[in-house]
Amino acid sequence: MRPSPLSGFPEFLPAQRIVELHVIETVRETFELHGFASIETRAAEPLEQLLRKGEIDKEVYVLRRLQAEQEETPGQSTLGLHYDLTVPFARYVLENAGKLEFPFRRYQIQKAWRGERPQEGRFREFTQADIDVVGRDELPFHHDVEIARVMAEALSRLPVPPLRLQVNNRKLIEGFYRGIGAPDPFAVMRVIDKLDKVPADVAAKMLVDEAGLSDAQVGQCLALAEIRTPDTSFAERVRALGVRDELLDVGLAELEAVIAGCLVAVSERLTVEADLRIARGLDYYTGTVFETRMSGFEGIGSICSGGRYDSLASDGRVTYPGVGISLGISRMLVPLLARGRLSASRSVPSAVLVALPSEADRVRCDEIAQELRRRGIPTEVASSAAKYGRQIRYAERRGIPFVWFPGAGEVRDIRTGDQVPADPGTWTPPAGDLRPQIEENL
Amino acid sequence: MRPSPLSGFPEFLPAQRIVELHVIETVRETFELHGFASIETRAAEPLEQLLRKGEIDKEVYVLRRLQAEQEETPGQSTLGLHYDLTVPFARYVLENAGKLEFPFRRYQIQKAWRGERPQEGRFREFTQADIDVVGRDELPFHHDVEIARVMAEALSRLPVPPLRLQVNNRKLIEGFYRGIGAPDPFAVMRVIDKLDKVPADVAAKMLVDEAGLSDAQVGQCLALAEIRTPDTSFAERVRALGVRDELLDVGLAELEAVIAGCLVAVSERLTVEADLRIARGLDYYTGTVFETRMSGFEGIGSICSGGRYDSLASDGRVTYPGVGISLGISRMLVPLLARGRLSASRSVPSAVLVALPSEADRVRCDEIAQELRRRGIPTEVASSAAKYGRQIRYAERRGIPFVWFPGAGEVRDIRTGDQVPADPGTWTPPAGDLRPQIEENL
Repeated sequence: MRPSPLSGFPEFLPAQRIVELHVIETVRETFELHGFASIETRAAEPLEQLLRKGEIDKEVYVLRRLQAEQEETPGQSTLGLHYDLTVPFARYVLENAGKLEFPFRRYQIQKAWRGERPQEGRFREFTQADIDVVGRDELPFHHDVEIARVMAEALSRLPVPPLRLQVNNRKLIEGFYRGIGAPDPFAVMRVIDKLDKVPADVAAKMLVDEAGLSDAQVGQCLALAEIRTPDTSFAERVRALGVRDELLDVGLAELEAVIAGCLVAVSERLTVEADLRIARGLDYYTGTVFETRMSGFEGIGSICSGGRYDSLASDGRVTYPGVGISLGISRMLVPLLARGRLSASRSVPSAVLVALPSEADRVRCDEIAQELRRRGIPTEVASSAAKYGRQIRYAERRGIPFVWFPGAGEVRDIRTGDQVPADPGTWTPPAGDLRPQIEENL
Repeated sequence: MRPSPLSGFPEFLPAQRIVELHVIETVRETFELHGFASIETRAAEPLEQLLRKGEIDKEVYVLRRLQAEQEETPGQSTLGLHYDLTVPFARYVLENAGKLEFPFRRYQIQKAWRGERPQEGRFREFTQADIDVVGRDELPFHHDVEIARVMAEALSRLPVPPLRLQVNNRKLIEGFYRGIGAPDPFAVMRVIDKLDKVPADVAAKMLVDEAGLSDAQVGQCLALAEIRTPDTSFAERVRALGVRDELLDVGLAELEAVIAGCLVAVSERLTVEADLRIARGLDYYTGTVFETRMSGFEGIGSICSGGRYDSLASDGRVTYPGVGISLGISRMLVPLLARGRLSASRSVPSAVLVALPSEADRVRCDEIAQELRRRGIPTEVASSAAKYGRQIRYAERRGIPFVWFPGAGEVRDIRTGDQVPADPGTWTPPAGDLRPQIEENL
């Protein structure tokens, strides 16, 4: 009789949700400190809008009204659930272009849906946190640096295993491939994008078969893909490969600027590196590209990706270039929570449980609670006037650290047993106990 | 070429979204101060779960994978989007019963979807904020008072036109109808529920035709429905009608307790009243029932409704009674925002724009911004080194109150023109300017 979970639709218990809320609040706070405005877009888009990007049409969930009178009103679009936050954002920008100020800097934290086969790190429903800057007709390059730095700052504040933000630049690799005489630089990118998944000798063969490279060219491409530096020294190593191309030079300068601009956010929690094998093969990026790995969880793939689009959107007359990055909150958190690597010190917001001597005391207990709440202390009153031992266990099971005894006018820290006289108009818990604490477990 | 809005799927511009975020933050803060834990449930439920409640099957959006290999894997449920947060919450409670602590007090702020014909106050996609308390096998009545009081407190803090929280009790009216000898008390409720929409003489005829009442009984029922008091004096007026019934007495006592318990939250913004015509005809409530009207917007119906269920969920062995209330955030805000009744003082979080003397100064300007952000002041740096006049207009168009001039080491309040020397390590804007202000316009 008990309902069972739906595969690919992760849900959290209350203490796990506290961890997720903490992560969402942290990234939101960072985005807002940098002046990014929040928007939300509707969950559904016309199907033709969703399919424009190609490649992923089989992953879209289509909506149908259960008892639509006729199959669908002719002329009305079929709707599908969005599978990312970029396509709806591009549509929002076009729809509201006259009412927005450009460059428009927004964040968007919402769910998305993909009707794919569930597997670790891939879900049918998942939460993403995106930031993008979009310009009208033009968007200065320094916004690439800004996007990288804002997300790096947000990531460095998260209570998760060490993260590695990997940056590359399409102009750099396209220029390089062109410089060595590759007949189809994009075919090279698509193979390089698979270096994580296939052995080097297989990739080498694919570069010959699919991208038409000579053995010498293959060697150059694989040498480029091996360059990975935590600073701007990659540029020197690329130049040492002896390839000359104008676009390559632009790409090198851009990647140097992004890496240099992120160094302020580097910490034990976050490494930033130039990684010249990052290509993001199927996406239409035109400059900077990002991916992010989480230490010990490399198998789930990139948890935070994005890059620069020369044309995020266009209405035929005006083109809107953009740069953005998307943090996969679910992809990052679900495995950590499932393995107990992250938890919260309690399952409720309450810092205090007001014990109830008898049901007749409820009004008085409510007043004590209300006095504490007025001063910002989350408080609940016991649900029943059970023996105090049971009321204390009620608090313990939820992780509530303090129990208030109205008769004695005392408050007890139930973790230590310390009990002191207290006035609801002045008593304050230690700052660390006001909100649930996020705990990292190894 | 410009995409057009989808009817029934409201979206907000950035400044409107700031208003919505403020409302969500306010109710969330209130719920957490009272110890309610956040949960989110997946957007999709098996269709048979969604249809169990009956009556609204034609409003469900069904999901279909665009290119499912075969129509649907046999044995796999068809999924639909949830149309409220109560059905998924009941499922969540059953699914996780062994891992939850009861009474379980949760809030849930999420979107829901209904495939209905859009009209004012009715949307195909909308945001709700629900609180519920659910017990295992039993749930003390005082939680009805708690739910009413917590929501009343949240409502009283919202920057919206005056609200009227209307409370009634199914036991009271069922007992009364039984006490006058009505053959089918629920048929009476269904008619009384329509008193808002049909004239009294039509309702009287329906009570005769559909509920089998005599003219005298009709008179009694309409007299009861006319009682509406901002305090507990309703009880005396009901007793003056001379009807005697045990269930009526229980209902009167419960309604008195709820009304008395809410009086602390009453303010200019919020009236609480006993309104004996509130029946919520189609829902399966068994005691307390709530509705809420917004002054000047009565036509959109109740913006906050709920009540007591003796069986919110059941797995056959254990029954979970609950009491809850649901605030229709979209229903409340969309008309206010559309009419300009609510707005935000700016469209971005930024309190400060750091002006850019020349592109070469960007690093220094970024450092000033970072220093301000470190102290919690949302700040952005100008996108281009245009003339200062243009940079100031950039701030003006977004409503950013302060512009920082790095050369002079001064900050200007661009609303007044006041400009003072300032140090990014110590300068702080007035508290009222740190976040966008919510403005009520009449």
